[in-house]
Amino acid sequence: MNPREFLDSKKEVRLEELKAFLRFPSVSAKSEHAKDILACAEWLAKHMEKIGFNTKIMPTGGHPVVYAEYIKPGNRTTILYYGHYDVQPAEPFELWKTSPFEPIVENGYIIARGSTDDKGQLLTHIKAVEAYLATGQQLPVNMKFLIEGEEESGSENLEKFINDNSALLKADVVVVSDTAQYGRNSPAVTYGLRGIAFMEVKLIGPDRDLHSGSFGGAIPNPINVLAKVIASLHDESRHVTIEGFYDDVLPISEWEKKQIARLPFDEKEFLEKTGAKGLMGERGFSVLEQLWSRPTLDINGIRGGYQGEGGKTIIPSWATCKITMRLVPNQNPKDILDKAERYIRKLCPPSVKCEIIKHGGAPGVVVPTDGPWLEAAGRAIKTGFGLEPVFIKEGGSIPVVSTFKRVLGLDTLLLGWGQSDDNAHSPNERFAIADFERGCYSALALIDELSRLSR
Amino acid sequence: MNPREFLDSKKEVRLEELKAFLRFPSVSAKSEHAKDILACAEWLAKHMEKIGFNTKIMPTGGHPVVYAEYIKPGNRTTILYYGHYDVQPAEPFELWKTSPFEPIVENGYIIARGSTDDKGQLLTHIKAVEAYLATGQQLPVNMKFLIEGEEESGSENLEKFINDNSALLKADVVVVSDTAQYGRNSPAVTYGLRGIAFMEVKLIGPDRDLHSGSFGGAIPNPINVLAKVIASLHDESRHVTIEGFYDDVLPISEWEKKQIARLPFDEKEFLEKTGAKGLMGERGFSVLEQLWSRPTLDINGIRGGYQGEGGKTIIPSWATCKITMRLVPNQNPKDILDKAERYIRKLCPPSVKCEIIKHGGAPGVVVPTDGPWLEAAGRAIKTGFGLEPVFIKEGGSIPVVSTFKRVLGLDTLLLGWGQSDDNAHSPNERFAIADFERGCYSALALIDELSRLSR
Repeated sequence: MNPREFLDSKKEVRLEELKAFLRFPSVSAKSEHAKDILACAEWLAKHMEKIGFNTKIMPTGGHPVVYAEYIKPGNRTTILYYGHYDVQPAEPFELWKTSPFEPIVENGYIIARGSTDDKGQLLTHIKAVEAYLATGQQLPVNMKFLIEGEEESGSENLEKFINDNSALLKADVVVVSDTAQYGRNSPAVTYGLRGIAFMEVKLIGPDRDLHSGSFGGAIPNPINVLAKVIASLHDESRHVTIEGFYDDVLPISEWEKKQIARLPFDEKEFLEKTGAKGLMGERGFSVLEQLWSRPTLDINGIRGGYQGEGGKTIIPSWATCKITMRLVPNQNPKDILDKAERYIRKLCPPSVKCEIIKHGGAPGVVVPTDGPWLEAAGRAIKTGFGLEPVFIKEGGSIPVVSTFKRVLGLDTLLLGWGQSDDNAHSPNERFAIADFERGCYSALALIDELSRLSR
Repeated sequence: MNPREFLDSKKEVRLEELKAFLRFPSVSAKSEHAKDILACAEWLAKHMEKIGFNTKIMPTGGHPVVYAEYIKPGNRTTILYYGHYDVQPAEPFELWKTSPFEPIVENGYIIARGSTDDKGQLLTHIKAVEAYLATGQQLPVNMKFLIEGEEESGSENLEKFINDNSALLKADVVVVSDTAQYGRNSPAVTYGLRGIAFMEVKLIGPDRDLHSGSFGGAIPNPINVLAKVIASLHDESRHVTIEGFYDDVLPISEWEKKQIARLPFDEKEFLEKTGAKGLMGERGFSVLEQLWSRPTLDINGIRGGYQGEGGKTIIPSWATCKITMRLVPNQNPKDILDKAERYIRKLCPPSVKCEIIKHGGAPGVVVPTDGPWLEAAGRAIKTGFGLEPVFIKEGGSIPVVSTFKRVLGLDTLLLGWGQSDDNAHSPNERFAIADFERGCYSALALIDELSRLSR
């Protein structure tokens, strides 16, 4: 029996194992689930031990990490897998059609909290290894699994863990299955994420709220001034006007343009999903280019003056806003924050006081499109799904991917088996059994593909 | 004994009467003081009855009006006096050096809640009448006193009262002493007030907060758009850009420029009072012109997106702001609101939804500077204070003055005897006994001056 045949023969057992994994209410955000979290970590470690890994449960400042490795001399490639065994809270319970921690199968889906995010997707890689080892095959790569228990509550201890264990985690590439396919029957390799930079700006006019009759028209109104500052951060084409903002932005490559052109994308459908009346992106770029390959600046919150019902005739003392910029690879968050601060201070008239807090950020990441990893991942998906994969990026940030790059120098392959409508973080979370299976086949093929690459 | 001599002879009695008036904790905003309000109204009505008025306590939807009149055939001018017998709450009590409703005299001041606002100032006019009648003189004018009990809680029933009693209140001019002198030993006639127009603008982008990674850069951000709209409401000279905004604004008259030029005004001191770092008014006008004679537009409050600590990476669904415009006489609040709405809707891109609520407003008022009233008031003050009065305006609105103009067709003379640092609305409210006395003399002279004017 070869590993693929082993996978074929174990469908039912595998589904039962997934159910066992899903029965732990390993909700990391709630302290009353601390015991469940630990029980889940122990189950996982034991399960992997049985398969043939060396495992240990490693403490952190919060919930522990399950670490497992399989290392043999002579194996060329070392893969670091990252996943998480904790889950989002299940609330609101009343919106669940079934009990969130009693997994059931219905219409080809397994329904439970954590089914797609991330227990189901994570398990595919473990089951691929089992398929090798249970059939007496030599695993052709070295493997390390870093499985955390705090992803859904902010991964507060993860960066320190990776820093403290950088030697242990040494590898050639990272594999994560915690994203989604591009669409139904459209498995995807996510090869880039935007970074982020966050700052707050507070403008202060008078030292207290003033009567707008007695002072209005002579004394600076910090809301009016802040509006002017914010308005000056974009030009009419909706380019960001901060001096030097685009200095390090790379042009969109021909390869990337080709990938985007291949993708079905319905602007009308995208717009309808948001409820907005129209699009309003940077001129000269398609929506996917705007979301994936162009940096942006958005005000996430603004506040100043009277907030209650009706009116209050004041010149407010201050106004404040929260600004995040989504960055693309090659932009440096610190550099961008410095440029933004300089520019905003220049925009501020001397009659208002300007306080700026730069909260830092994370750079964007991209897997080199001319390296070996992307193609190997694409071939594995093609084998596992029997479908041509698409290569996509994502507009958001996954901080751990930046950390792997920064601390370990590693690129990360984001291979999502789920769907964006699998209700991750929502009631009735689900995972198609067909996607679970195709994920296992792809995970198996990935081992094979990566083993053939020279380091 | 003539009326002036009578005033001279009654200083101590008059001060005791003021104290008696001040002992009523007639706090209109607090229901537990309803009895005190009524007792105060009854004391006032009885006091005026004794002097020689016909008085009645007239019910309203809230606290009653004390109405008093003195009418004789043959008297030419009818003066309508307006004042209020209610007071602000005294809280915070711990900041008072004395008990707010146990008036005491210290360093030439009488200290108590209501001493300057408005019991002390109101009483000067009543005492002037007494001086006439007690000395057997014929009062040379007809008089009506409208003394309300809800000024400090919003005058909610006043407009209806004036409307319902417009025949009763028929007069030639209104006199109000509820403002302040321009400065120490600088008694003033306030001859103009700005009006106001109030609106709220809400811009809506997506139908819920969206992830700024997945949508930022393509979907309209209503905060960014609102900032652009607000920024577009002023040009670089800080003129308001709303089309037609200045159409009905009259140029500042030579007479007014002369009055302003006569006034001591220290911009540095004015600025220091506000704590702001610099002035920021409409270019081409002095500060007093900006405050008194030019319309303005201020954002009184703004809100949108995430308001808590730290960051939240969203494209907010909506952003809203409160806008008031201070208007000058001859501008129509409804017209200005319509113009503002048209302009703002034109500024809004089609990709956001724009909701506007026009709350209405009140026009500015001005006493004609070429009519008889101002000069007569000035002469009375000169007689009473022995000082040359100044003619000033005020940047805020006093709604009842608009109501007198609109409903009764009457101009209002605002003659303030107090000082801006008399702590009206604050702990340790006070009124200089010298100002009280000079107010009485001025009130007496005013009767004389107004009686000589033809109707």
